Amino acid sequence: MADTGNDHDTAVGAKLSPKPWSNTPSPMSSYVRPMLTDMYQITMVFAYWKQKRHEDRAVFEVFFRKTPFKGEFAIMAGLDEVLKYLANFRFSSEELDYLRGQIPHAEEEFFTWLGTVDCSCVKVYALQDGTTCFGKEPLVRVEGSLAVAQLLETTLLNLLNYPSLIATNAARHRLAVGSDKVLFEFGLRRAQGPDGAMSASKYSYLGGFDGTSNVLAGHLLGIAISGTHAHAYVQSYVGLDSLQTPFLRGQNLVEKALAYRSALGYSESNVGELAAFIAYAQSWPDNFLCLVDTYDTLNSGVPNFMSVALALYDLGYSPLGIRLDSGDLAYLSKRIRKWFTEVASAYSRPALQMLRIVASNDINEDVLYALSKQGHSIDAFGVGTHLVTCQAQPALGCVYKLVEINGQPRIKLSNEVEKVTLPSRKHLYRFFNENGVALVDFMTRDGEPAPKEGQRLLCRHPFDSKKRAYVTPTTIVPLLSLVWDGQKGGIQPGASRTLEESRTHVMGQLKEIREDVLRHINPTPYKVSVSEELHALLHQLWELNAPVGQL
Amino acid sequence: MADTGNDHDTAVGAKLSPKPWSNTPSPMSSYVRPMLTDMYQITMVFAYWKQKRHEDRAVFEVFFRKTPFKGEFAIMAGLDEVLKYLANFRFSSEELDYLRGQIPHAEEEFFTWLGTVDCSCVKVYALQDGTTCFGKEPLVRVEGSLAVAQLLETTLLNLLNYPSLIATNAARHRLAVGSDKVLFEFGLRRAQGPDGAMSASKYSYLGGFDGTSNVLAGHLLGIAISGTHAHAYVQSYVGLDSLQTPFLRGQNLVEKALAYRSALGYSESNVGELAAFIAYAQSWPDNFLCLVDTYDTLNSGVPNFMSVALALYDLGYSPLGIRLDSGDLAYLSKRIRKWFTEVASAYSRPALQMLRIVASNDINEDVLYALSKQGHSIDAFGVGTHLVTCQAQPALGCVYKLVEINGQPRIKLSNEVEKVTLPSRKHLYRFFNENGVALVDFMTRDGEPAPKEGQRLLCRHPFDSKKRAYVTPTTIVPLLSLVWDGQKGGIQPGASRTLEESRTHVMGQLKEIREDVLRHINPTPYKVSVSEELHALLHQLWELNAPVGQL
Repeated sequence: MADTGNDHDTAVGAKLSPKPWSNTPSPMSSYVRPMLTDMYQITMVFAYWKQKRHEDRAVFEVFFRKTPFKGEFAIMAGLDEVLKYLANFRFSSEELDYLRGQIPHAEEEFFTWLGTVDCSCVKVYALQDGTTCFGKEPLVRVEGSLAVAQLLETTLLNLLNYPSLIATNAARHRLAVGSDKVLFEFGLRRAQGPDGAMSASKYSYLGGFDGTSNVLAGHLLGIAISGTHAHAYVQSYVGLDSLQTPFLRGQNLVEKALAYRSALGYSESNVGELAAFIAYAQSWPDNFLCLVDTYDTLNSGVPNFMSVALALYDLGYSPLGIRLDSGDLAYLSKRIRKWFTEVASAYSRPALQMLRIVASNDINEDVLYALSKQGHSIDAFGVGTHLVTCQAQPALGCVYKLVEINGQPRIKLSNEVEKVTLPSRKHLYRFFNENGVALVDFMTRDGEPAPKEGQRLLCRHPFDSKKRAYVTPTTIVPLLSLVWDGQKGGIQPGASRTLEESRTHVMGQLKEIREDVLRHINPTPYKVSVSEELHALLHQLWELNAPVGQL
Repeated sequence: MADTGNDHDTAVGAKLSPKPWSNTPSPMSSYVRPMLTDMYQITMVFAYWKQKRHEDRAVFEVFFRKTPFKGEFAIMAGLDEVLKYLANFRFSSEELDYLRGQIPHAEEEFFTWLGTVDCSCVKVYALQDGTTCFGKEPLVRVEGSLAVAQLLETTLLNLLNYPSLIATNAARHRLAVGSDKVLFEFGLRRAQGPDGAMSASKYSYLGGFDGTSNVLAGHLLGIAISGTHAHAYVQSYVGLDSLQTPFLRGQNLVEKALAYRSALGYSESNVGELAAFIAYAQSWPDNFLCLVDTYDTLNSGVPNFMSVALALYDLGYSPLGIRLDSGDLAYLSKRIRKWFTEVASAYSRPALQMLRIVASNDINEDVLYALSKQGHSIDAFGVGTHLVTCQAQPALGCVYKLVEINGQPRIKLSNEVEKVTLPSRKHLYRFFNENGVALVDFMTRDGEPAPKEGQRLLCRHPFDSKKRAYVTPTTIVPLLSLVWDGQKGGIQPGASRTLEESRTHVMGQLKEIREDVLRHINPTPYKVSVSEELHALLHQLWELNAPVGQL
C-alpha cells in the first residue's frame, strides 16, 4: 500500500538529492523556475520572513470546485512536470538581484535566506497522473515550511490546470468515438503558444489520443506522429507538365492514372490536383493518403485520388486513403465509401472499399456525437483547435488553499457556499463495490482511523447536512500517495510514471466509473463525501470564523 | 518609405548572419525549433525534394478570415518571436536522426540536404507588431524556396495566432475601461501552460495592460509586476498572539489598531484577519494593500483594514488600499468608497477617501462594460482567466496559404465562399482621410502601380462584385514592410521593436480607427478592398480552377 501520509515528519534542512525522473524531459522544464510565480507569493513570503514565521509548518491542498466541460469527471495530469519543478526549485543569483530591486526596503538577510531555499523541507502527496478525479477533492497535498509551500502555489497550479484540462478533454473525445476509431491531435498551429502546443500533444496522448501531427512532440515525447500533405501542396501543381517524370517502378503512372480518370468519367477534374496526387504517389507510394478538398471534393479530389490509387494497385502498391477537411463529413464519408465500394467491385480491387477515410475541420466532442448519430464512414479524426485550446472551457479552476498551519486546521469562508474550503490535512479514498465499480469518494481528516473494507461507513455531503448515506465498500483505494519527500531523495520510487503508463492508467480508471457519470449530456454527479469527523470540523470552524454581521 | 517588396530578388544560397534582436529574449525561444511543426510539412517537403521542386519560388501569405471576439479589428503581434525563429532555423543532427526514422524510405541525400536548410533564401514582409488589422489581409508574406517557405508554415502560425489573439483581447479590455484605469494581468495560474502564461503577460502588456503578477515576465521582459497577499496569508494568522511584535517604528500598532476597530464599532471582525493585516503592515508599511474577503468583506475585511490603515496614518505612513475578490464589485466598491469618505471625514484623514480599490474575480470585457454602466468606484482591475485563455474565443484562425508559385498566382477554392483565397503576391495599403482617420484597406496584386494619394481609386469587395466604391485618400500608408531578408543580414533594421515600442504603436493605431468599428457590441465592419486588377484575377482563377460539377 502507498504511503498515504499518516506519519507527520517535520524535519527540515537536510540537503536534497533529487533522482532523475523517468519521463522524457519536455521543453518547458528548462524555464519552469521559482520565478514563474505571482508577485504576491514573494510579497507574502517576505512578510512571513519578517515575522519569523517562514518555518511554520503549513499544509496546502490543490483542488478544483467544478468538473470541466459540463461533465462530472476530470483526469489528473501534470504531476510529472511538478516533480521536475520541485527537484529544480532554487533561485539563481541573477533572479535574486531582480527581486532585490523589487523589494528595496527588504534586509539583505532576506535575500541571503531566499537563496538557500529549496524543496528539501517539503513533502508532496498526489493522485497519480491519469487518475479520475472530482470536485473538492485534494489532487495534491503539499506539506512544508510556510514560506516554501507558499512559494510553490502559482507554479503548481499552472503545471496542473492545463494538463488536467486537456487530458480530460482528450478522454472525453475518446469516450465519444469509442476505442476502435483513431484520434490524432492536429492543434499545433492554433495552440496557446509553443508550449501550449507541446502540452496539448503530450496530455491529449495521455488522455487517450493515438498520435499527433507535432514533430517535436514525436521527437521529445515519443508520441506517434502523422501527417500527409496540405492544400498548398495541391495548389503548387499547375498541370501535368510540372511532373519531373511520369514513371514509378518503371511504369507510366501518368498514363495509367489518366486512363482510369477517363474510365471513371471525370476528365474534368482539376489537372493540377491530379498532377499533385501523382507526384505524391511517386514520393510516398506506400503512404498514399490525399487531402481531397482543395478544389472540389466529389467532382475533383475523390475521382483524382481514385484514378491514382487504381494505378498504384496496378503497380503493386497499397494506397492508404483520403482526408476530408470541409463539407458535411457524415454525408461525404458515406457517399465516398459507397463510391469506393462500387469502384472496388467494378475493377476487382476489394482493398479500395476498405481505404481509410480521415476527417478533420473544426471537430469537437459535440461534432463527434452528432456524426455518430447520423452514421458515418470515418475511420480516423484529426482534432485541432477545439481540443488544444479546450474551446468549450479553456481553463480548469484548480486552487491552492491553506488547510492547516502548525497543526491547526484552517478555513476560508465565502458568501458563495461552494467556495468555502474544507479545513485540515485530509486523506482521500475511493470506495468500490464487489464489481469493481466506484461508489463514492470519501475524505477523512488527518488522525482519524482509516476506513476499512467491509465496514458500514457514514458518508456525508460536506455542506448539506441533510445529505448522507451509509456505504459498505468491498474495496477501498487510498488515492493520495507520497510522490516527493525532500528528506528522502526527493522524487519517490514509482511516483514519476512514463507517459505510456499514465495513458494506460486513464483507460483503466474510466472503466471503474459508472457510465451515467461519464455520460456526455446531463451526467449523474459522482458523490464526493466527508467523514462525520471532517463534517463536524468544517461546520465548527465555519461558525467560529464567520463574523456576526451588522445589517 | 519602407520596402514594400516591389523588387523581386530571387537569389538564394548565401550564408546568413542574423543580427541580434532588440527585444529581451523570452523563454520560449530556446525550443522554438524547425521541429515544432506539423509532420505534413516534412512529408510535403520530401515530396518536393523528390520531384526536384524544392527550389521552386513560392509566396505564402498569413491571414485570418474573421476578426476575433465578435469584433471588427485585431492587433498583430508575435513578429518579434517569428524573427528569432527565422534567425535560428536549422535542423540539428539529432533532429535529422529522428526524421530518418520517420521516413525510412527516403534517400540519405534528402537528409543531407535538409541539414543545410536555413532561412537565407527567404524574404519576409510583415505588419509591424501592434498594427491594427482586419480579415483577409496578409499580415505576413513569406517568399522563398518552396521547401523552406513550406517548412515555416505551422511554426509561424503558432507564433502569431495566440500573441495576436491576446494582444487584441488586451486592447479590447483597455477600450472597455478607458485610459485612466489601471489594468493588471493576473492569469499565470490559469494560463495554458508555462509559456501560455509568459506569452499572455507579454502580449497583454503590448495590447495595453499596465502590469502583471508574473514575476518571471517582470524579470525577463521588464514589465511592471504587482501583487500583495492572498487568502492563505490571512488564514495563516489565528490570533493576535501569533504576532512577533506589536510594534512598528517604536509604537504599538496593535493597540492603535484595536482602538480604531473598537471606535469604528467592529469589535466582532475576525481577529486572525486583523493580526494578518497588522503583520502585513509591519512588513510592507509603504505598500499596505489588503485583500479583504477572506471571511466577510463588509463585516470583517474592510473594518479590519481601516483600523490598521488609520493606525498607519498615525505613524506617518500612507496606506495604499484594498482588493476585492468576490461579491458584487460595483455595489461593494461604491459602498466602501462612501465608507472611506465618512471615516476620512470623521478622523480628518482626507487621504483615506482616495485609497485605491482594486477588483479581481472572473473579470472579462463584458463585466467591465457592465460595471461601467452600473457605476463603480474601482481604480484598478486584475484580470486573469478570461484574459489569458481568451475564454470568449480561445483561438485565432490565422492560416498560411500559397498565393504564388514560380511567378504564377495560385488559388484555393472552397464550397464556402469566405474560404476561397485571394491569389498572387499582394501589397496592402491603408487609406486615410484628411483627419487621419482610416477609410479602407486596399490590396493590389504585385506589379500594379502603387495607389497614389489624392487619386480617385476604385475599391472593390473581393467576392461581391456589386460592392465597390470610389475613394480619394488624403494619405496612404503601405502596411507590409521587409522585416527579414536572408540575403541581407537577416532581420532588417527597425523590424524588431521593443515591447514598449509596440505597445505605444497599439495606442496610436487605435486612435486611427473609427469608434464604431472599435465598438464592443455590433461594431461596424471595416472595409477591406481589392483593386480592379486583383478582383479580375481572383474571379478568373476561380472559374478556371473550379471543376464543372456532375449532379
